[in-house]
Amino acid sequence: VLVTLLSDFGLLDEYVGVTEAVIAGIAPDARVVHLTHGIAPHAVLPGALALANALPFCPVGVHVAVVDPTVGSARRAVVLRTADGRLLVGPDNGLLLPAAEVVGGVVAAFEITDHALFLEPVSRTFHGRDVFAPVAGHLACGLDPAAVGPAVDPSTLTRIAIPAPVLAPGRVEAVALAIDRFGNVALNVAGAELSAHGLPFGTRVEVRIGEGRFLALRAPTFADVRPSEMVVYDDSSGRAALAMNSGSIVDVADVATGATVRITLA
Amino acid sequence: VLVTLLSDFGLLDEYVGVTEAVIAGIAPDARVVHLTHGIAPHAVLPGALALANALPFCPVGVHVAVVDPTVGSARRAVVLRTADGRLLVGPDNGLLLPAAEVVGGVVAAFEITDHALFLEPVSRTFHGRDVFAPVAGHLACGLDPAAVGPAVDPSTLTRIAIPAPVLAPGRVEAVALAIDRFGNVALNVAGAELSAHGLPFGTRVEVRIGEGRFLALRAPTFADVRPSEMVVYDDSSGRAALAMNSGSIVDVADVATGATVRITLA
Amino acid sequence: VLVTLLSDFGLLDEYVGVTEAVIAGIAPDARVVHLTHGIAPHAVLPGALALANALPFCPVGVHVAVVDPTVGSARRAVVLRTADGRLLVGPDNGLLLPAAEVVGGVVAAFEITDHALFLEPVSRTFHGRDVFAPVAGHLACGLDPAAVGPAVDPSTLTRIAIPAPVLAPGRVEAVALAIDRFGNVALNVAGAELSAHGLPFGTRVEVRIGEGRFLALRAPTFADVRPSEMVVYDDSSGRAALAMNSGSIVDVADVATGATVRITLA
Repeated sequence: VLVTLLSDFGLLDEYVGVTEAVIAGIAPDARVVHLTHGIAPHAVLPGALALANALPFCPVGVHVAVVDPTVGSARRAVVLRTADGRLLVGPDNGLLLPAAEVVGGVVAAFEITDHALFLEPVSRTFHGRDVFAPVAGHLACGLDPAAVGPAVDPSTLTRIAIPAPVLAPGRVEAVALAIDRFGNVALNVAGAELSAHGLPFGTRVEVRIGEGRFLALRAPTFADVRPSEMVVYDDSSGRAALAMNSGSIVDVADVATGATVRITLA
Repeated sequence: VLVTLLSDFGLLDEYVGVTEAVIAGIAPDARVVHLTHGIAPHAVLPGALALANALPFCPVGVHVAVVDPTVGSARRAVVLRTADGRLLVGPDNGLLLPAAEVVGGVVAAFEITDHALFLEPVSRTFHGRDVFAPVAGHLACGLDPAAVGPAVDPSTLTRIAIPAPVLAPGRVEAVALAIDRFGNVALNVAGAELSAHGLPFGTRVEVRIGEGRFLALRAPTFADVRPSEMVVYDDSSGRAALAMNSGSIVDVADVATGATVRITLA
Repeated sequence: VLVTLLSDFGLLDEYVGVTEAVIAGIAPDARVVHLTHGIAPHAVLPGALALANALPFCPVGVHVAVVDPTVGSARRAVVLRTADGRLLVGPDNGLLLPAAEVVGGVVAAFEITDHALFLEPVSRTFHGRDVFAPVAGHLACGLDPAAVGPAVDPSTLTRIAIPAPVLAPGRVEAVALAIDRFGNVALNVAGAELSAHGLPFGTRVEVRIGEGRFLALRAPTFADVRPSEMVVYDDSSGRAALAMNSGSIVDVADVATGATVRITLA
């Protein structure tokens, strides 16, 4: 059985290793794949987007995600079963739902309440180790998800709003959802929608980010523009995204997650 | 068999991957769990603490740790057998002993001297690859630890001093032992000791770090204070620790590992 | 079967996890070892050197490397079979060849063209996920490399130039090839060549980097000099390298990959 892990734990501390070790102790035959632990601390929306990007490419398994700024409070911990047979494990703070919807939606949900599954005493600040890892280990060993606790009405699960773009012919006002290691900036609009609104591949566009104005080309990949030129491409998850060939957007533009990005026909 | 790895190698270079590859070559069925490789370069005490935090949550196995500023010198390389059946592998510089003591102490120790186990020629600077990884691989395959070299009197193993806190009713002078990815600051004092010295949960306290003075609440978790407020909680290893709800201590206080932290009744 | 991965993807995003998940879906029994994903973005030469350092220590397997600044362009994707039976998978941009030569050279090469092996639709920017991972998964399951596409004349594979040092008795002009996590600076000259040109262990040398001049000792390891003293040692791959005992070269010298380093008899 495959178990995937995603978190904002980072890799400087022992948190990720301990989480995997707990799973390995309960489910020695489970294969653990680390999707990423580089989500910015407490950044639930970026974590949800990364999980939604990754999940369709993962074999069906147990998928744990922990970005959990209100750990230790009354927020629920949940297991979601998806239409394609996956089990998603994590806090009920919006982190899991976008990924579940990419793979067909939630068909059943359960609140994690059975302390017999936990590492006792449960710490107040590391439920990754004490709650989510052991529950995932038991699920990987075949535990019925209904055994973790009472069924939850899926319509009561917490949702996080993903901001919507403003689209008009030849222009879009978007928001930077994620900036990756290469400085590529993913927007809250599908590349296909850009193309459908008068900005297809081959179009020259103006990109405005804060005080910055940049000429760019709508094109399929980085190599379609010259080094240090900007391209507005469709990224590997289908989102419109900004990149610079052989460079990084963050070196030329003052852009952060949440920034407004306006693209208009040049 | 489980093999865990912990080091100060970081993840920018190929050192960690090469170490795991050597183990995989000798012990193809061993499962390798990376506890962390984010220990600050040459930081033996933080490495020892991270290993001690992690080990009780790991299945019994072979546990390699390499934070080894004097690699290539006359410092000994050792295998320690613990009371609960673990084998700890690493330099004899204090890195392994705190973890061994958390799981019942050292019942036997051996100096690693048998060159037949090493990758030859042994480099002078990468014993993780040439000494510790192959020894760990052979131990994971069932090699008797007594075969790595002569027995060592456990009382001669190198110890590192962990600074002791100064405790009085309603006040403690502590030292920052570790600062994690979230900016949470672990102190050299158990949370239970703070509570026993007039600073139980619910108490309002003043925290002094360098020139900074902060009001904080003794409480079980981040969510017990408002965003941007400081909490003095018991961390997941039982240590007293400082955190800021939805924020990071390092953004408001000039604090580094080794800094003095004074906590008094407010 | 062992599959190793090396890339410039970093660990902040979900790219590495997705790549491993795709391999796990196709080859559930393959063991994946991450050599490193910390190669600087688009840095083909450093990626090639890291792979060449690591490969001799890896069991024979399928070895994927992706540092691919021209992804989505006409650059070829290839599988190389080496003299010792390995399969190297990646872009034909020079990344793979130095490693192949360290293990005996390329005995056969194939261009990856069979779309039946790919994840469709193939994105234009994430061939790690859509091309290299599924091809690696199928190779790990025993696919004949000749099935990925037409044979390629190995002499047509792209080579990257590794700069050559200038050697004279008692002096060398070298280039910094790589700077690791510890601030150790690997040079484009073998330690043995330095020793053969009048700079053997025990020699006092002057090291010039930019405007900086430093006295250093040619010696086998860090511990051979005092803390904060510079040593010119032979690193674990046999290259001459600069280090500072209990410190980091980058804290005292203005050095970056590609910088000129002059070493002369003091």
